[in-house]
Amino acid sequence: MGYASNVRFAVAATLSETKYLSRFGGPVKQNALYAQSGGVTAVINASACGVIETSRKHKNKIGKVFAGRNGIIGVLTENIIDTSRESIRDIASLRYTPGGAFGSARHKLKGLDESRAEYERLIEVFKAHNIGYFFYNGGGDSMDTAHKVSLLGRSLDFPITCIGIPKTVDNDLPVTDNCPGFGSVAKYIAISTQEAALDVASMAKTSTKVFILEVMGRHAGWIAASAGLAGGKHDAPHIILFPEIAFNERAFLARVQTCVKRYEYCVIVVSEGVRHTNGRFLAETNTLDAFGHAQLGGVAPALANLVRKGLGYKYHYAIADYLQRSARHIASKVDVDQAYAVGKAAVE
Amino acid sequence: MGYASNVRFAVAATLSETKYLSRFGGPVKQNALYAQSGGVTAVINASACGVIETSRKHKNKIGKVFAGRNGIIGVLTENIIDTSRESIRDIASLRYTPGGAFGSARHKLKGLDESRAEYERLIEVFKAHNIGYFFYNGGGDSMDTAHKVSLLGRSLDFPITCIGIPKTVDNDLPVTDNCPGFGSVAKYIAISTQEAALDVASMAKTSTKVFILEVMGRHAGWIAASAGLAGGKHDAPHIILFPEIAFNERAFLARVQTCVKRYEYCVIVVSEGVRHTNGRFLAETNTLDAFGHAQLGGVAPALANLVRKGLGYKYHYAIADYLQRSARHIASKVDVDQAYAVGKAAVE
Repeated sequence: MGYASNVRFAVAATLSETKYLSRFGGPVKQNALYAQSGGVTAVINASACGVIETSRKHKNKIGKVFAGRNGIIGVLTENIIDTSRESIRDIASLRYTPGGAFGSARHKLKGLDESRAEYERLIEVFKAHNIGYFFYNGGGDSMDTAHKVSLLGRSLDFPITCIGIPKTVDNDLPVTDNCPGFGSVAKYIAISTQEAALDVASMAKTSTKVFILEVMGRHAGWIAASAGLAGGKHDAPHIILFPEIAFNERAFLARVQTCVKRYEYCVIVVSEGVRHTNGRFLAETNTLDAFGHAQLGGVAPALANLVRKGLGYKYHYAIADYLQRSARHIASKVDVDQAYAVGKAAVE
Repeated sequence: MGYASNVRFAVAATLSETKYLSRFGGPVKQNALYAQSGGVTAVINASACGVIETSRKHKNKIGKVFAGRNGIIGVLTENIIDTSRESIRDIASLRYTPGGAFGSARHKLKGLDESRAEYERLIEVFKAHNIGYFFYNGGGDSMDTAHKVSLLGRSLDFPITCIGIPKTVDNDLPVTDNCPGFGSVAKYIAISTQEAALDVASMAKTSTKVFILEVMGRHAGWIAASAGLAGGKHDAPHIILFPEIAFNERAFLARVQTCVKRYEYCVIVVSEGVRHTNGRFLAETNTLDAFGHAQLGGVAPALANLVRKGLGYKYHYAIADYLQRSARHIASKVDVDQAYAVGKAAVE
């Protein structure tokens, strides 16, 4: 995977490099604010570690590093954490900690006109804590928010250096060719698929013939594709279903049957976002609860039903859900290093 | 975990130690047959490795080690693998390979009278390949089968040393206090639960408040219980549901609500075999497919539905299924060593 491109992205994302000058014309030492945004990854804390450790090495320019508690919500409510109170050891351990250490949030700031009050509140809090640098660690929306904060700061005569630090498990951020968070999910899915496939292969003679693994990626098939990384040409997974390709039931069942005849078993990896040609999610179509509501989630059981009704094979399915994106125990070293590097580069 | 007990079990399982004597009264070097049975574990191949490596050290007593292809099915169909053709290196690598290397089977031999023809067929194949030692690597049923083969062999004047090698992920084998296969699942579930919990905790302010992990153990709650091993007193999981304890919907929802109020989120680990007081599986009750059939599997979505309808919290769920029992990448070292040791002890 391209390592350097993300580092460039972090640097390129320096949306406003205007320095905040004191009345006397010299640069003033200002504080920094770091916030995590959106769904977390196995390595987002490594980026936090990169920001804080690197900032501590530039004490001539950066004062304290604050962190928003629960992301941007913490900034809006002035609930921020002073990371300078944390020991060197605790900050270093962030590199190896899953989850989002300071809390994250799904809170999308809209356009400057629509959400002007919120943007002004951010600037107000920045002013109150002498924040000159805003590091926002998230996906596409967060990059956009950082840009808008920068624009508003300038217009309010409080120029602030806003830097987006990329993060996503889906690997669908524009500009980047890969993104911190994805590598670890890819490793988890590739290895788990091979392990489960060996299990199914052992039992196929008398038991389960079809195994379905449901993975994340509602709009992007990168995670599903990663299931194919570990195997050889004829190894599992035999079928990968992508959200970008409309589902064809007849072709799917034919392929499952061919695999079972050829290999005695069939391993399928399916992205949660797979849709019919009419745009409906597969997971919405076949499964109703006792009250007639469409059952949310679960494309794997929907596929399993098709296999049962169409072919009658014994099946098993797994839904990896949060296990895949939080699996720090099997995080990719490249991914961890990359996540740290984008945090470091953002400061530098 | 008690290490020694399993070793004793393997030795104690030597159901017939009668030696097969040659016409001239001296012991004859005989071959061994090894077969895997039932659902595989992350470490069952380590037991195979223990059997084969140890047999190779006793060449004065044990000739070749054959392995049944697809377990007992391979013996019945005389489809057996001569492991003496495999290199030292390939046999050693079994210790680290997930799945069941020789194939396993779900094929239960019934009582001696009911399945007499099959037992006689086994003895016939044993005779044809000069098998004096039968190592059967499985759960309770396999131990029973080994015992019956031993009895029949004696009655047919073909005494055979039958040794059961214990294996199960559910940890529900009689006599043993723990069993190879379980330790690795326990480690996987304990760590995955903590990782996912950190993920949920990060996001709980604005997003998912309830996370449900469905684990194996249709009749035994050991795997579910292992989810509690990694956390502290107030850490996740906040609720563990066991197959041994009838489900109480009202108490469950009240506890979920209390947790969300106290911790901002709630992590639930549920055994697939949880039942209502009337004995019905939870997974059978609430979910129907579009054709009105009870949806098989999936106690996690059933619980998630209850949470949605009763409390309205945003939820996520994961179904670990085969991922948990095949996860060799995070196998417990104690478990691997134990699995090897029961194979070794079985031979010695």
